[in-house]
Amino acid sequence: VSGAPHITRATVTPILIADPPLLNVLGVHQPWTPRLIVELETDDGAVGVGETYGDTEYLELASALAERVAGHPLTRLSQLMALAAQALDRAGEPAAEFDPAGLRGRRSDEKLVRSVVSAFEVAALDALGHITGQPVHALLGGKVRERVEYSGYLFYRWAEHPHGAGEAPADDWGAALDPDGVVRQAQRFADSYGFRSFKLKGGVFAPDEEIAAIKALAEAFPGYPLRLDPNGGWSVETSVRVAEELDGLLEYLEDPTPTVVGMAEVHRRTGVPLATNMCVTSFGEIPAAFSADAVQVVLSDHHYWGGLQATRELAAICRTFGVALSMHSNTHLGISLAAMTHVAAVVPELVYACDTHRPWQTEDVITRPHVFVDGALEVPDTPGLGVEVDRDALAALHERWLELGVRGRDDVAAMRVADSDWEQPTLPRF
Amino acid sequence: VSGAPHITRATVTPILIADPPLLNVLGVHQPWTPRLIVELETDDGAVGVGETYGDTEYLELASALAERVAGHPLTRLSQLMALAAQALDRAGEPAAEFDPAGLRGRRSDEKLVRSVVSAFEVAALDALGHITGQPVHALLGGKVRERVEYSGYLFYRWAEHPHGAGEAPADDWGAALDPDGVVRQAQRFADSYGFRSFKLKGGVFAPDEEIAAIKALAEAFPGYPLRLDPNGGWSVETSVRVAEELDGLLEYLEDPTPTVVGMAEVHRRTGVPLATNMCVTSFGEIPAAFSADAVQVVLSDHHYWGGLQATRELAAICRTFGVALSMHSNTHLGISLAAMTHVAAVVPELVYACDTHRPWQTEDVITRPHVFVDGALEVPDTPGLGVEVDRDALAALHERWLELGVRGRDDVAAMRVADSDWEQPTLPRF
Repeated sequence: VSGAPHITRATVTPILIADPPLLNVLGVHQPWTPRLIVELETDDGAVGVGETYGDTEYLELASALAERVAGHPLTRLSQLMALAAQALDRAGEPAAEFDPAGLRGRRSDEKLVRSVVSAFEVAALDALGHITGQPVHALLGGKVRERVEYSGYLFYRWAEHPHGAGEAPADDWGAALDPDGVVRQAQRFADSYGFRSFKLKGGVFAPDEEIAAIKALAEAFPGYPLRLDPNGGWSVETSVRVAEELDGLLEYLEDPTPTVVGMAEVHRRTGVPLATNMCVTSFGEIPAAFSADAVQVVLSDHHYWGGLQATRELAAICRTFGVALSMHSNTHLGISLAAMTHVAAVVPELVYACDTHRPWQTEDVITRPHVFVDGALEVPDTPGLGVEVDRDALAALHERWLELGVRGRDDVAAMRVADSDWEQPTLPRF
Repeated sequence: VSGAPHITRATVTPILIADPPLLNVLGVHQPWTPRLIVELETDDGAVGVGETYGDTEYLELASALAERVAGHPLTRLSQLMALAAQALDRAGEPAAEFDPAGLRGRRSDEKLVRSVVSAFEVAALDALGHITGQPVHALLGGKVRERVEYSGYLFYRWAEHPHGAGEAPADDWGAALDPDGVVRQAQRFADSYGFRSFKLKGGVFAPDEEIAAIKALAEAFPGYPLRLDPNGGWSVETSVRVAEELDGLLEYLEDPTPTVVGMAEVHRRTGVPLATNMCVTSFGEIPAAFSADAVQVVLSDHHYWGGLQATRELAAICRTFGVALSMHSNTHLGISLAAMTHVAAVVPELVYACDTHRPWQTEDVITRPHVFVDGALEVPDTPGLGVEVDRDALAALHERWLELGVRGRDDVAAMRVADSDWEQPTLPRF
């Protein structure tokens, strides 16, 4: 065991993964979505792996950071932020204001930096775990639970992408476009994975249809915690009406309306706990939102909060201010699912089941993809993240990235393929 | 390297250390003050060491926790809090409201638990560092600096304890009871340790005398950051007057007045940054104090905040709310100084030199006591904390604890030895 392992090389591999036609307020998921796989090699011979968003600006910054980390001590995780900030050379161009692809809240250079750093930090912790023989959770203060619960993530969806695009054949989930379809989807989630709570991605249809879907779920799964997330698709008045009509049926309502002021008013008028992964997605947004009592549950995404240590810090802030913490998910693979599981295992206050898109992905880049049992994953005690890269799978998905040329995720453009009149919706939409 | 080292045994050794007659708002330091040394042994054969307060209730809880940690995984640091809370069996007796010994802010069971846990957490990190070959800072996210700066901690003091009590012979610092004495003390601190900033413990004499001392320091050490800490000894009006008279001379004023409301008013009226280790000493006190803008610098004491991970969390909270962080010190030895140095090395925002009493202690329990160079300590890269217990010294100080029977620190009682009319002052005193 060396006292100070150093990074010798960082490799960033862009990949395209198949994604089903899941609907949301902005449009629909594309047939293919980019992700980045980051591998760090060390002078101990240990390798660590991380994963993050794959749109072009993430890839560019990750590549620039990869050039800068060689020779740096593996354990100086906080230095990654500084290196990434240096690497982000925009030559004066400000970041775009809004991210049509992401539904990831306010866009900023800081969030881009953090999203990229997260993959390097996870990879560094994985490598350090291999070097020291410790699981990542032990390097984060130690697990407080043996299993991490996840929630079944329900989507309105089509059976297949327009014009049969994407993975062939399409998955066999079929369409879900009404309450019956949503309940059928939930039943399959419950049967296949044992999920014991459900989140419905809303903002797709008129609020009354989504209210009906939640009521149908409540009837089919009595006692199951339910959540509805229209991604800021509703006005304050609509949000209040939905909250009142679903009184007692929701564990929380997620991002009903797009502004902090609006969220605060909805909570004040209804008392319903509001969760967010849109109006509070960075440390700088916390003071105003918390002092306005605009959010009662922060849904952390370790990618854009800056990694696993940063997620622990967010947890401490939430604990101190009496705000709950749970976990957001965007389309991801097993490396990020492992990272989510390790950090969720060390946060005592994480009482809500975490979100994950993972069941919607038919592919992975690890040799033993995770298996949900009773809606949960075991927290592994093997060194590092406890995953091993499937080199053939990684190579194939990278080959696809080279071939297909999809370089970003844009749910608005994907919807326009089906509906040429579709415009980027102005939020609130309903 | 084992994947999951377990604690096999915890040993708590109470000791008495010599302490000079340093004056403060409540009275004077006793000739002897108790500390606890915690050693954790693991099934890997590695041993880790920690240090904390030694008054009877700390000893009792530490002993009870020591009985409970055997068999637990070394890396489940967050579990220590739960085990300590279980061990604190008060049979319904509430904690005393005020701690005459400590000047450590509001007393609570939670703070007692955290103060005890901190020694176990530091010991666990030290042991994990030995097992994994990593310095403690690497287990906390990695150092961002190579040196941690400390501040020269000036005290009004007598040459020796009343009736020649305590260490014999007394140290050779002599008395410091006026501006000249304070400047002489600072000069020796600067000459011997290279400190480049000074803090004067105030609240001892009438405010005008302490104002004169700060002005004398400013004249003798032009450009040196200066701090004055009367431990809540002043009313709001006195605080405002002192702040105005020292306008431009103080880096910050520490705990001028005892309440959050008073602190907020002093800051509002004077604009002087206020530091605290009294009105914000636990996570529960943060929201009210921060929203009132009552403190601009939190002085963390890793003992009562609950350890090094907790200090990192506090740093994240402070960063998010635009409050600075620096480090408080109570009488301590080299194990805690090492822990302070490791955590200070990983907190990017720690821009103020940390406090330390360490130069006032003539004894230590480590084989190579720290040497301040240019007022700073190097951040070590050796495994763990980078200290080794001096078993003879530890045995001798424990023997003293057995012999002398001093079981708590009580600055009020110590002052009464010199002045039989001395009563516990009601704060504010001036």
